[in-house]
Amino acid sequence: MNQVAILGVGQTPVREHWDISIRDLAVEAGRAAMMDAGITKVDSIYVGNMTSGRLSQQRQLGALVADFLGQWGVEAVKLEAACGSAASAMRQGLLAVASGEKEAVLVIGVEKLTESLGRQTTAALATAADADYELPHGVSFVGLNALVMQRYMYEYGYDRHDFAPFALNAHANGAKNPNALFRMAIDQKTYDQGRIVADPISLFDASPIGDGAAALLLVPAEKAPQAVRIAGSAAATDTLAIHDRAEPLWLKAAELSANAAYKQAGITPEDIDLFELHDAFSIMAALSLEACGFADRGAGVRLAQEGDILPSGRIPICTMGGLKARGHPVGATGLYQLAEATLQLRGDAGDAQIEGARIALTQNIGGSGATIVAHILECP
Amino acid sequence: MNQVAILGVGQTPVREHWDISIRDLAVEAGRAAMMDAGITKVDSIYVGNMTSGRLSQQRQLGALVADFLGQWGVEAVKLEAACGSAASAMRQGLLAVASGEKEAVLVIGVEKLTESLGRQTTAALATAADADYELPHGVSFVGLNALVMQRYMYEYGYDRHDFAPFALNAHANGAKNPNALFRMAIDQKTYDQGRIVADPISLFDASPIGDGAAALLLVPAEKAPQAVRIAGSAAATDTLAIHDRAEPLWLKAAELSANAAYKQAGITPEDIDLFELHDAFSIMAALSLEACGFADRGAGVRLAQEGDILPSGRIPICTMGGLKARGHPVGATGLYQLAEATLQLRGDAGDAQIEGARIALTQNIGGSGATIVAHILECP
Repeated sequence: MNQVAILGVGQTPVREHWDISIRDLAVEAGRAAMMDAGITKVDSIYVGNMTSGRLSQQRQLGALVADFLGQWGVEAVKLEAACGSAASAMRQGLLAVASGEKEAVLVIGVEKLTESLGRQTTAALATAADADYELPHGVSFVGLNALVMQRYMYEYGYDRHDFAPFALNAHANGAKNPNALFRMAIDQKTYDQGRIVADPISLFDASPIGDGAAALLLVPAEKAPQAVRIAGSAAATDTLAIHDRAEPLWLKAAELSANAAYKQAGITPEDIDLFELHDAFSIMAALSLEACGFADRGAGVRLAQEGDILPSGRIPICTMGGLKARGHPVGATGLYQLAEATLQLRGDAGDAQIEGARIALTQNIGGSGATIVAHILECP
Repeated sequence: MNQVAILGVGQTPVREHWDISIRDLAVEAGRAAMMDAGITKVDSIYVGNMTSGRLSQQRQLGALVADFLGQWGVEAVKLEAACGSAASAMRQGLLAVASGEKEAVLVIGVEKLTESLGRQTTAALATAADADYELPHGVSFVGLNALVMQRYMYEYGYDRHDFAPFALNAHANGAKNPNALFRMAIDQKTYDQGRIVADPISLFDASPIGDGAAALLLVPAEKAPQAVRIAGSAAATDTLAIHDRAEPLWLKAAELSANAAYKQAGITPEDIDLFELHDAFSIMAALSLEACGFADRGAGVRLAQEGDILPSGRIPICTMGGLKARGHPVGATGLYQLAEATLQLRGDAGDAQIEGARIALTQNIGGSGATIVAHILECP
């Protein structure tokens, strides 16, 4: 298969975009990526989105976006894997270029969550879980993650306050990203006083929803020798219901997808300069660091406590705010991560720049770890 | 790219499956395709579906189906392009094998529509249209097609009764298919007395919704020299809103996708032995025959009147009942078409067998022609 490069990056700020429709959000990010690449015509479009059918009464986003981007006639389709939708769209866009079938592919993640009634949004997001075996118990998505965090604290002897470094790092980094939803640093006291949402998860352990879109323009690497390349790409799945897993504290799909991506890229975790992980909840950040080979079991929180996840640390994470501070427009998040990693490797990350970064890992999660997609980006 | 073959076919009957969940429908069809292929382990799974997030409160069908098929860990994702979802999933499954990345890929289309309240289902299906510029006028999906049919009759001088041959052919063919929802032939008098749903569309011009799942198991053709091969595969888009088209009576995306598929296969319409087209409404069957090169503009209905679409005719269509009689489980339909075409080319179509069929065209449509996917299958 051909190697693929990222020639253009586009994104909208993550906000409550009450004045912008889902089509316009997608078009804004897509057009920005095309302009960044200096390309006016693409061969196909892959859109990642989770909830538009329910919250915007709009399906068939592929054709819709192709039309309003002026890309009449091109192949276009939507992919959905809950919060892992955007990186799933990236996987297929990548395959279209790598296979040689297409030469310029636009990949867009878009989500519009805040204009609907809160209970509508909560119900739409809950469809990421198992509708027959989890939801009937009345547990929310935060509740499921709270159960996992509770178990983690019990198994490994942590207190809920030990998770603070994840929130502090994300907020400090988000303050440097003009597209982030939350652009203010917080301190340990603020974290400690965070209102409990689902014990032990506080407001500062949970990422906020938001509206937004991010996009990449993919081309064969041989056509863009100076552009960031995709060195690894893999997806894996686990049971939808957490209670079906032999080890509820182990993200099996993260291990599988990261290891496959490492192998493709011919690298090990030691080679990674920054890791855009899926910190929908701080417990997920800890579990990701462990499953992807950056910490032993139960040591993900300790890694954060020791400062290794900071911009100056051994493995900087959430360098532009992560889900926690940039915001989590669910079906768009995976492409925000990829866009941010690309900007870092291009040296275009502004105040959030990680000096000398040459290899980045991104990881997008659907549900409670049921779909996990890993990508490794490299400087040319 | 590698050539791809269809090693296994599976389907459930199209019915009102009130006693079977969407996961079990998908698993039943997927397992049947794997058993047909004699394969117990696949490399990835692509699922086509339109409405599960809203009507079954279940998203992330890829991971769900992988789990319940016992395919733990494999990559799995859902594609959506309204009623064109299943053939869109086929496109990506095909690409995964053609690129050399995967060696055994399961593609499943599944939909469960009848268990919900009728108005919920109608609202879910309406999301295939443009939510901002079509739906606010209060027009339903049937209403949009009625407007197109009205215009067609006006332009080309037909009466609504002239469309009868499409319904008569579909019902006669569906009677021979044990998986069809409607298994009874109808006569001209029955057609003429059909209750008007949206003038000029009667009950017999509109396909019925239904629940069901169909699946294919794809492998590299070199691994299955005796299996039906995919000689062409292409998708194209048009504006979501019909009123944005310069020619509302021309399915531009059908023309683009069919021509691309013909070119890949190195054939012309004259070489096609049967055509599984997307007769969601009889007007769509007429427009498809014209856009895909089987009739001149305005002559699609005449082609049907002259008997050319019958099993014994020049270009048999809807050979196992089509959407009209087999039923239209929207996000599964594209794979029913592909499954039926495969059975025809294998000589396994039972009473519906088209003798000597060697090349088949399938065409799956999302919305009012906004997403159209064409596949050409060939005997080895």
